[in-house]
Amino acid sequence: MSALETISENRAFGGTQGVYSHRSSATGTDMKFAVYVPPHDTDATLPVLWYLSGLTCTHANVMEKGEYRAACAEHGIIFVAPDTSPRGDGVPDDEAYDLGQGAGFYIDAERKPWSTHYRMETYVARELPELLAKHFPLDMKRQGITGHSMGGHGALTLALRRPGNYKSVSAFAPIVAPSKVPWGQKAFLNYLGTNEEIWHNHDAYSMIFIGRGVPELLIDVGDADQFLDEQLKPEILKGVCLEAGIDLKLRIQPGYDHSYYFISTFMAEHIAWHAERLKA
Amino acid sequence: MSALETISENRAFGGTQGVYSHRSSATGTDMKFAVYVPPHDTDATLPVLWYLSGLTCTHANVMEKGEYRAACAEHGIIFVAPDTSPRGDGVPDDEAYDLGQGAGFYIDAERKPWSTHYRMETYVARELPELLAKHFPLDMKRQGITGHSMGGHGALTLALRRPGNYKSVSAFAPIVAPSKVPWGQKAFLNYLGTNEEIWHNHDAYSMIFIGRGVPELLIDVGDADQFLDEQLKPEILKGVCLEAGIDLKLRIQPGYDHSYYFISTFMAEHIAWHAERLKA
Repeated sequence: MSALETISENRAFGGTQGVYSHRSSATGTDMKFAVYVPPHDTDATLPVLWYLSGLTCTHANVMEKGEYRAACAEHGIIFVAPDTSPRGDGVPDDEAYDLGQGAGFYIDAERKPWSTHYRMETYVARELPELLAKHFPLDMKRQGITGHSMGGHGALTLALRRPGNYKSVSAFAPIVAPSKVPWGQKAFLNYLGTNEEIWHNHDAYSMIFIGRGVPELLIDVGDADQFLDEQLKPEILKGVCLEAGIDLKLRIQPGYDHSYYFISTFMAEHIAWHAERLKA
Repeated sequence: MSALETISENRAFGGTQGVYSHRSSATGTDMKFAVYVPPHDTDATLPVLWYLSGLTCTHANVMEKGEYRAACAEHGIIFVAPDTSPRGDGVPDDEAYDLGQGAGFYIDAERKPWSTHYRMETYVARELPELLAKHFPLDMKRQGITGHSMGGHGALTLALRRPGNYKSVSAFAPIVAPSKVPWGQKAFLNYLGTNEEIWHNHDAYSMIFIGRGVPELLIDVGDADQFLDEQLKPEILKGVCLEAGIDLKLRIQPGYDHSYYFISTFMAEHIAWHAERLKA
């Protein structure tokens, strides 16, 4: 099935900001997502930048606060924001903000009750691209990926697990070593179980350590980010990236916190960086 | 009293996006507002752009969706977004979205029960500027004003009522003739009473018609705006502006609606336009 329901479409920066819904076979639920298509020539296909959101977010947060449309219009990039988990009455949840709905961590859960619906890796990396290719002028050979916090973890790990699939990878304040921090440990224990060997296949730091790689990474994080030391730890990527020959551009931005005020400030630079690589 | 309570401050585009609260003597309530201060030299004072929001909004809508910070940082402009009405348990309200809280129309109400708290003109044009001058590096000789919909009405009328106070005036999809349209008639009837002579003192079209003026106006509105024909009617300004010698730049933007997707698309152009005049 590739039926797509249009929830809204608004003209913005010469293009169209849309919100759509469809029935996902990966998650077994209805899923919403946002797509911005910039102005473009008829018959043109455009590179796409995937943006994966953080804990508690939906497709809407970055759409409203991310300030990406001006840069996407300038560079001719399609911008897609999926949801962060399956949702709905029949979908398992947890009272905590960092588990269950809003906290899918971009992995396919292996443990009950999560494993039925929480198949966000399959959804984001396979099902949604195939669906979008049928409905939007996407050039699927030119995909980039980025994300924030939990979504930064998603961007890094999906790219590391699919060599060549994404031509460019960046992140805003990502969780880089989920196996070592409370957010990741809680999610992985629930979704994947106690076998830490499995965890390492979804942990950017561990994957780079054992030799998986991408050519280069752009990461921004604020030094006033309230989660920097306990949950994010981007500095630990420096050693393994050096060892693995990954060109890591890690920028510690003075005074910035974990919010969309931080993300929106550096969004245009990330889009320009992706555009340079996607259009090379 | 000039006490200011800081609700939040976030680093953004090299400056600070703040939200503050204070006790207003004009409205007799606590009032919130948002201020963006761009990066600037110590001891510098900066021009300020007032942004008045539309029906149902608070200070937060434009702060989250308006995409003004990049341009304000580039041009060195302070951006202030007040609330749209007094609020609180003791403040009169109405079930309709277009009367009462969230719908102050930037006038001082003359009729009960509104007249006690609904004194938004005094608040926005006098009390808040005086308060801000004490707490932020504002050059009060260089004020510009803009707004959206009801707030576009506010920008036009406050500027027309205070010749010379604002050096630049623009609007997004403004109500230009409230006396002639349902939103304005309902508000004026409730807040000002049945004497239409008084209405004309708060109606941009009427004021320009009787000879009040500003040197120039920049107005953008989308041709897919759902309120264009019934509530906004910007085209009727053309004749009176020509007659009054006001340089009206009215741009009908194809495909755009009444939303913040429209506003954010043209925000940077408005800020550049104000900056040119405020820094001349």
